[in-house]
Parts: sequence; C-alpha cells; structure tokens
Amino acid sequence: MPYRAPLSDFRFLLGRVVGFGQVAATDLFAEAQPETVEAILSEAGRLCENTLAPLNRAGDKEPARLENGVVRTSPGYADGYRAITAGGWVGIAAAPENGGMGLPLTLATCVNDMMGSACLALQLNPLMTQGQIEALEHHASDAIKALYIPKLISGEWCGTMNLTEGGAGSDVGALRTKAERNGDGTYAVTGQKIFITWGDNDFSGNVCHLVLARLPDGAPGTRGISLFMVPKFLPNDDGSLGPRNSLKVVSLEHKLGLHGSPTAVMSYEGATGWLIGKEHGGMAAMFTMMNNARLGVGMQGVAVAEAAFQQALTYASERKQGKTPLGDGAIIDHADVRRMLGQMKAEVFSARAIGLACAVALDMARATGDAAWAARAALLTPIAKAYGTDVGNEVAYMGVQVHGGMGFIEETGAAQFGRDVRVTAIYEGTNGIQAMDLVGRKMMDGGEAAFRLLGEIEAAARAARAHLPDLSTDVWNAAEGLREGTEALLTMAPNDRNAGAVPYLRAFARVLGAHYHLTAALADPSRLPLARFMIRRLLPEHTAMLAQMREGAEGIYALTPEALVG
Amino acid sequence: MPYRAPLSDFRFLLGRVVGFGQVAATDLFAEAQPETVEAILSEAGRLCENTLAPLNRAGDKEPARLENGVVRTSPGYADGYRAITAGGWVGIAAAPENGGMGLPLTLATCVNDMMGSACLALQLNPLMTQGQIEALEHHASDAIKALYIPKLISGEWCGTMNLTEGGAGSDVGALRTKAERNGDGTYAVTGQKIFITWGDNDFSGNVCHLVLARLPDGAPGTRGISLFMVPKFLPNDDGSLGPRNSLKVVSLEHKLGLHGSPTAVMSYEGATGWLIGKEHGGMAAMFTMMNNARLGVGMQGVAVAEAAFQQALTYASERKQGKTPLGDGAIIDHADVRRMLGQMKAEVFSARAIGLACAVALDMARATGDAAWAARAALLTPIAKAYGTDVGNEVAYMGVQVHGGMGFIEETGAAQFGRDVRVTAIYEGTNGIQAMDLVGRKMMDGGEAAFRLLGEIEAAARAARAHLPDLSTDVWNAAEGLREGTEALLTMAPNDRNAGAVPYLRAFARVLGAHYHLTAALADPSRLPLARFMIRRLLPEHTAMLAQMREGAEGIYALTPEALVG
Repeated sequence: MPYRAPLSDFRFLLGRVVGFGQVAATDLFAEAQPETVEAILSEAGRLCENTLAPLNRAGDKEPARLENGVVRTSPGYADGYRAITAGGWVGIAAAPENGGMGLPLTLATCVNDMMGSACLALQLNPLMTQGQIEALEHHASDAIKALYIPKLISGEWCGTMNLTEGGAGSDVGALRTKAERNGDGTYAVTGQKIFITWGDNDFSGNVCHLVLARLPDGAPGTRGISLFMVPKFLPNDDGSLGPRNSLKVVSLEHKLGLHGSPTAVMSYEGATGWLIGKEHGGMAAMFTMMNNARLGVGMQGVAVAEAAFQQALTYASERKQGKTPLGDGAIIDHADVRRMLGQMKAEVFSARAIGLACAVALDMARATGDAAWAARAALLTPIAKAYGTDVGNEVAYMGVQVHGGMGFIEETGAAQFGRDVRVTAIYEGTNGIQAMDLVGRKMMDGGEAAFRLLGEIEAAARAARAHLPDLSTDVWNAAEGLREGTEALLTMAPNDRNAGAVPYLRAFARVLGAHYHLTAALADPSRLPLARFMIRRLLPEHTAMLAQMREGAEGIYALTPEALVG
Repeated sequence: MPYRAPLSDFRFLLGRVVGFGQVAATDLFAEAQPETVEAILSEAGRLCENTLAPLNRAGDKEPARLENGVVRTSPGYADGYRAITAGGWVGIAAAPENGGMGLPLTLATCVNDMMGSACLALQLNPLMTQGQIEALEHHASDAIKALYIPKLISGEWCGTMNLTEGGAGSDVGALRTKAERNGDGTYAVTGQKIFITWGDNDFSGNVCHLVLARLPDGAPGTRGISLFMVPKFLPNDDGSLGPRNSLKVVSLEHKLGLHGSPTAVMSYEGATGWLIGKEHGGMAAMFTMMNNARLGVGMQGVAVAEAAFQQALTYASERKQGKTPLGDGAIIDHADVRRMLGQMKAEVFSARAIGLACAVALDMARATGDAAWAARAALLTPIAKAYGTDVGNEVAYMGVQVHGGMGFIEETGAAQFGRDVRVTAIYEGTNGIQAMDLVGRKMMDGGEAAFRLLGEIEAAARAARAHLPDLSTDVWNAAEGLREGTEALLTMAPNDRNAGAVPYLRAFARVLGAHYHLTAALADPSRLPLARFMIRRLLPEHTAMLAQMREGAEGIYALTPEALVG
C-alpha cells in the first residue's frame, strides 16, 4: 500500500512540540524559515512517495548480490540513489562551503525519517555517507575535506564505516586490523572487517571506507586505534579516479531483512589509507560519527514504525470480517484492532518527538555553543536510538498482528517491515549498550541534565493543569517518579545501574512520550484523544520499569550459568 | 546449536508444580505412573534431540514446494515424519480402542513441546492430525472412527483442518463453501479454502481433510455450518485406497516462517465428503478441535521459546567480547545479557507451567467429569494460547538480541525462531480473539472459575509466608489486585471488556506465572533465584496492564479513523 509522507505531523512537531522555532531563530540557521522548511518537507515527501517507496519490495525480493567480486544492487536502486543525490538530500545538513545546504540536522532528520519509511535498505546508504561527511568535517585535514566532501554530497562517491571485526563487535578495542606508515604520509591498512553496510555498490564512482586500525605503536584497547580513509579507487588530486586500491568484498551476508542493502565482509591487503584526525585518536572521530548515527538509527525505527502503521491502518480500514460493535464496517471498528492502531500511532508520535527533540538540541548546541544544549543532546541520544528502534520493532509486530493471517504472507509486505527493522535495535550499539550509556556516561554529571529536563517536564505539566487537570497530574506524577528513580539510580554501583539500564531507559522514554503528547494536546485539542491514550494506557508501564530498575544486579547474578542451564 | 530436551523441567513441573499426581491417581489414567512418564519423556526427548532438531534449518532453507500439483516436502521431513509416527507419538493421548496409548493429554503436551522445539514446521503436521483424531473421537460415526483413527495414529494417513476462506477468517460464519447431499449418504463439497496447514505432503498415503461447509438449507452464519471428512483418496471399506477425490492444491503460500510446512490454497470441486457430527452442527465439532488445538499452539510458543533460549544461552556462554564485570568471561557475565537470559528462562517456565496446568485440568475434567475442572481448563485455555505464543515471540526476539549482529544473519538460526513462531500469535484465533474469549465467554460464569483460581493462588501465597515472606506477599497482593480488576471487569459492558481484553489477559498470565514460580521455589530452593527474578522484576507489569484494562472502550473509539490518519 502506498506510503504517504506524514507532513502535517512534521509541521506540527516542529512548530508546536519540540521547539524548532528556537533553531530557526539562531544566526547559524537563519535560512530555516517556514517557507524553506515547507519546501524541504514537501519535496522530500514527494521523492519518498513516488520514487523510493516503490523500491522497497523489489529490494527484499531481489537482494543485492556479489558477482565475481562486484556487488550488483537490487532493481531500481541505482535510479533511487540518483534521485536522492540529485535532490541534494545527502548534504542537507552539511556545511555550505563543501556543497551542503547548511540546514539544521532537525530537517535532515525529518527527511531521513521519510526516506527510511519509503525504503530503509536504500536509505541506509546516504545515512552512512552523512555520518562520514560529519566525521570528515570535524576531523579531516582541509585537503581531504576539499577532495571528498563535495563528491560525497553530490553522490558521485559513497561513504562507509568499518568498525566491526569477527572478534571485535561491541568491544571495538579488540580489533586486529593493522596500519603501517608508508613514509609518504599515507598508510598501508591490512585486515578484515565484517558487517560493513553498503560495503560496495554498482552506482557510485567510488566507495570511501573509513576504517579503524591500529598502528604498530598503538596501545592495546581503544586508546591505540586510528582512523583512516581507504577509498576503493585512489583519487588523484583533481578528484579523478586513479588505480584500484588493495581492498575487496569477500562475501555478502544472508540477512533476516534489509536484503537490498549489501552487508559485506571487507578485506584490506595493504590498502592505501589517509589518516583522519590524529594518530591513536580514531575513537574520538568514530564517536562523532556514531553519536549522530545513533540518532539516525533511532529515526530508522520511527520510520519503519510509521510505514508499518500506515499499512496496517489502510488494511484495517478496508478489511471487512463479520459484524463489529459499530455495525458492518471494517475491522478497524473492533475495539482490540483500534487499540492496536492507537498504540502504534501513539508510539510513533512519542518516538518521533524524542528523536526530533534530540536533533533540536544538537542544532542548538552547534548554533549557540551552550553546554546545556549539548548535555541535553547527549542525554537524549541513547533514548532516541533505543526507544526509537524498540518502537520500530514493536509497531512492525503489531502491524503484522492487525493483518491477521495475511500478515504472515510475505507478499503482504507487513512482515518485511519487521525483518528490516530488526537490526536497528542491534547496530550502532545494541539497545542494551545505549541503556548503559544512559545510566553511565550520561549520568556522570550527577544527573544534572536529567533533572533539568524533568524540571521542564514538571513545569509544563503544572502549566497544563488548568486545561487538562487529570492528564497533567498523571504526567507530573510520572516525572516525579522518574526523578526519584533517577536519584536512586545515582546512588547505585555501576553494575547495579547496568542491571537496570534497559528498564530505566524505557521508563524515561515513557515519561518523555507522555510529556510530548501532553504538549501536543495543549497546542491542538484534536490531538487530545491520542494524548489521553498515551498517558492513561501506556504511561503506567513506567512504574513497573522503575521497580525493575531498583532491583540492581545481585538478583541477576544469583541466576548462575548452572541455574540457567537447569 | 544442538537442542537438549528439558527433561528435568518437565519432571519438576509435573511432579511439584502443576499437580500431575492428581491425574495419575485417577482410574482413567492409572497407567500414567512415574516409570511410564519417565520412559515417555526420555524416549521422546531422544527423538527430538537426535532426529528432529537436525531438520529445522533444512526445512527453512529448502521450503516445501508445489510441483505439477504435488507437494514436495523439505529434505529429511519424510524420515522425520516416519520417526514420529513409528514412536506412536501421534496417538499418545488417543483412545486405546483405536490404537492410541490412552495417556493423559498432559504427557502429549510435554512431547509436543519437545517436538515443537526441535522442528516446529514438522511438528505442525502431527498436531493437526491429533486435533482431527480428537474431533473424530467426539463426533464421528463408529464406522468413520474405525476406518480413520487407526490410520491417523499409525501415520499411514494425515489430518488437516479446513476452516478459513478468503472472506472468512476470524469470522468463520461467513464461509461460502457448499455441500450438497448426494443421496447415498455422502456429500459433494465445493469451494476454496486458504491457509490450510500441511494441505498435502509426499509421505503419507492419504490426507484427510476436515472441511467446514454449508448445506443448501443451512442458516447463514455459524449456525448453518456442517463438518465433512473429505479425503484426498476415497478409502474402500477395508481401508485400502480407491480413486482420487475431486480436490487439489492450488498453490502454496510464501511465508515469513515455517517454510517446511506447506500452507495450501485448497480447491474442492464436488469432492466426496462424509458428515462428521450432525448436519448444521459443524461448529460444535470444530470447537472441540480448536480448543485443544489452542493449547497445542500455546505450547508451540513455549517450545520455540525454549529452543531460542537454549541457543542464546549457549552463545552467551561461549562468546567473549572484552572484559565483563566478573572478569574475562563470556558475555553472559554482562548484567544486561544475564538479565535477558533470566527473563527468557522465567517466561518459558511461566508459560510452560500455565500450559501444563491447563492440560492437567483437561485431563482431570475428562477423568472425573467434574465441572469445576472443565471450567478451570476453559479459563486457562485462552491464556495458555495467547501468553504462550507471546512468550514465544518475545523470547525469540530476545534470543536475537543476545546474539547481537550475528542474530541478524540467517545462518545463525536465531532469526528463524522468530520467523517461525510469529504466526502462532495469529492462527487458531488471534491473541486478541483469545483475550476476548477470556473476558467474554469465560466470564459468563460471573467470574466463578477465575475467583476460585485466585482463591487458590492467595491460599498458596499465605501458606508460603513463613518461608518466603517477601515474595509471597508480592504474589498475594498481585492476586488481590487481579481479583479487584476482575470484579471491575465484570461490571463493564461487553465492548469495554474487549477494549481491555489483551492487557487483562497479560495481567492474569503475570499473576499465574508468579504463582507457579513461588510454588517452584517452595518445592526446591535452587529455583528461588528465578522465582525472585519473576516476582520482583516481571510481576509488577500486571498493575500497568490492569490500569489499561480499566480504561474501557470510550477512549479507544475517540481515536476516530480520521484522527488516526492524522
């Protein structure tokens, strides 16, 4: 069923819920005025509806494949890629001096959201390139920037991230890929990387790999890692392509979903690379790339949830099956089907609001240099990633359920959403790692950023009391419960926090979602039924999650491996 | 990774948790003494470990296919089928006069659980046949029984259920398949059925279809439906096979999972059928079949959860990835990984206990004729089905998560569990329909069966107070909360109940699970850590679910289709 870009939701969220007006009021983003925003959203929406969405099933049915060392992409993907790059959508948030639009990340996030709904497997390609552009902007030399970024933005070249190895997944510091100084300023990179998203393609002139490797004098662990640009073809200074580099695609993975996106095992055999950032400073560069990629992946979850919701809503509105409590209508009139659709819609709204609020904080931090905005963004990033992708999986699951038996048939397309989105809860740091980031690194400020946000939520709830007394009381109480839970968390030892990290993150997302729904209902009374659904039916989960968080690690380790085997 | 039959869990559950001793004490099941039980479990366990489990990946990779109207099954499936039937496992609970073992359904449920863990796609075949045997035992003429049941038990023939049509899924009464009287006692059946599990195969001599159809004078809706036996080959009176019947497999579905199980579109063109039960009495016969099939499907969820848990546990015990809080061990030593494994194990135990308690109630009802046992079974059936299959899906999801990126790679096998188990939450009545059955039909006794069960749970919690004061208090409080929730439910209008049916069922399952874990911990202190995990970390969810249940339908219908489109 055709995807429809949710433009009115974007307009409403930007204008009335997540405070995009603050971004547009900064000097840096003075261009982001309403008519520009409207043009961006509607033009990207058209691309996604008309050009990208029709590719989604094709990529699933005819996966990318490796033929004689060359990746052949799915039917139509090359055209889709050209349409994305021709529209300038890769460089929407990139700096104008390198050919980017220089617009807020918040707008890029909206566009990525739509592209992810339309065709997640293809959208992964520009998402990787965007991450690479950002890493280069922050860490590369001026020569590298000038050579690479304009071509990455134009789509002439693509970018990838090469972190994972067989023995080094979540533990990046265990990597074995080596780099040696060639003596001419370049490096020779040797090793094998796995799970390389869009490791190759047949539609871009070059594929630019950012590769983590260790120099001979690099310390063990993450501190001894450096980052290198290792392109498939060695570019000449004028940007024309020289000889092929010593790297190859060894194989492609046979995956549960995202069949249109080639996931490669890459082999580097003394491949020529250029240092990005400082020697042994690779992790800092990777973190730049990963932090925004985390928000990007969170929005992939939202994107698939939106698409799965739309398809389920259409199906439920058309499928007739006996009498309903409202008469002879479609199954949407059954209370339990309407409940599922309501939950799907409420979760999509919550997760999208959290993601866009995170993007706004990133833009404000960049535009103002205010550390409080940076701390806000840092706090929201793991929540946006983990909750957004949880929502992607949960909503896709419910979408299949709404379809009944038809949901299990691949031609329906409902199951594909669930297969495609599954990995978003794993890559860019599993959702467990996101949660540990939230209770660990992001609480190293003693909870300051969290308490400041909770203070704003409570103040907003108090201000809403006159208009929506019951809902605002629920939100205030929940925020207060989360405050107490956070205080308890801060007294806990690190591994006790880790034991409760996932339920804590979920509780935080519940409170945030309720807050944004309350904000929405105040701004527009037509949003009240959904807000009420969220706050009365879904918010109560947060108390169960906080109860679990308070239990700590002891009871978990009491489940010895022997006891688990049973 | 190899499947290991969880024999000690079965022994413990039967002996100490779900009261199988009561079943063995009845005259009807006097054979079900410990040595017999042990022989059954260990022999079936060996079959599943050695013969069936190795077929699971093969069926996924090489699906059953239709060639010139003939279904070709996956490699090894014919041998697996013969091993199942040779062991007598189809007729374990069937009446001895027809060649069955006459053992309790509870034991058949344990065996089906193991077979489902080993190879769900193949296990579906005997599960369908078992349902057919039961329907025939209750509703067929003596001649039909004598002709069919021994061959169904021996595996010479297979059985299927033909309910669904394109326009008649959950609304069975909308079916259009016609039956006409031939005048010789047989009927001519014409119509098309979809989603027919194991609609054909290449390893049984005959395939016996139980088909719902409407006679010319049948009333509209479910009251005018009759049930017919329509075999692929028309049997002679001596059981030898006569000519082929006028029926065929039109196509096989391309499904998310269960690739080894052919799901057929069946066409009947004046096919010869024999009436089962009375004319226009087909639904009663189907309900016999469906009720036990619901328990059977619930255990399919448990079965896949067990297999997914075992694989995740093995992976987490072997995979090393950096330092853990306990040293240099495998990732099982990370608190969040151990938390996931604990939740998986706790859920499997809860769901299996609920399913086996339901089976015990069915056996006791049959052995004693006591209406209270029948009411207990009726109450537990939708919970066993919906919660068991929810657990199947949730645990398979967590299994993928434990595997990290490897979980997304099909060769790992973790993803297949999730694909295979997905449909169990849909077929045999979606889990939403199960929940509506619980709050509707199963509460037509004014809640008597529910309150009696809650009374037992509270009494058990009180009795446990001296030994486990904190956990027993939690369980007692939760049962009391569920009692109050049930009282509130009973005052609600039917569609208000439907609106909260799914969360109510979940809350009920949480309280039941906590009760069985508490019982387990009292019986065997080594089970205490898992019981504590369940009661302290997972049980609190029930309050959030009851809060949602109390909201009723109004807020759901306030989400108009227009508001959902947004």
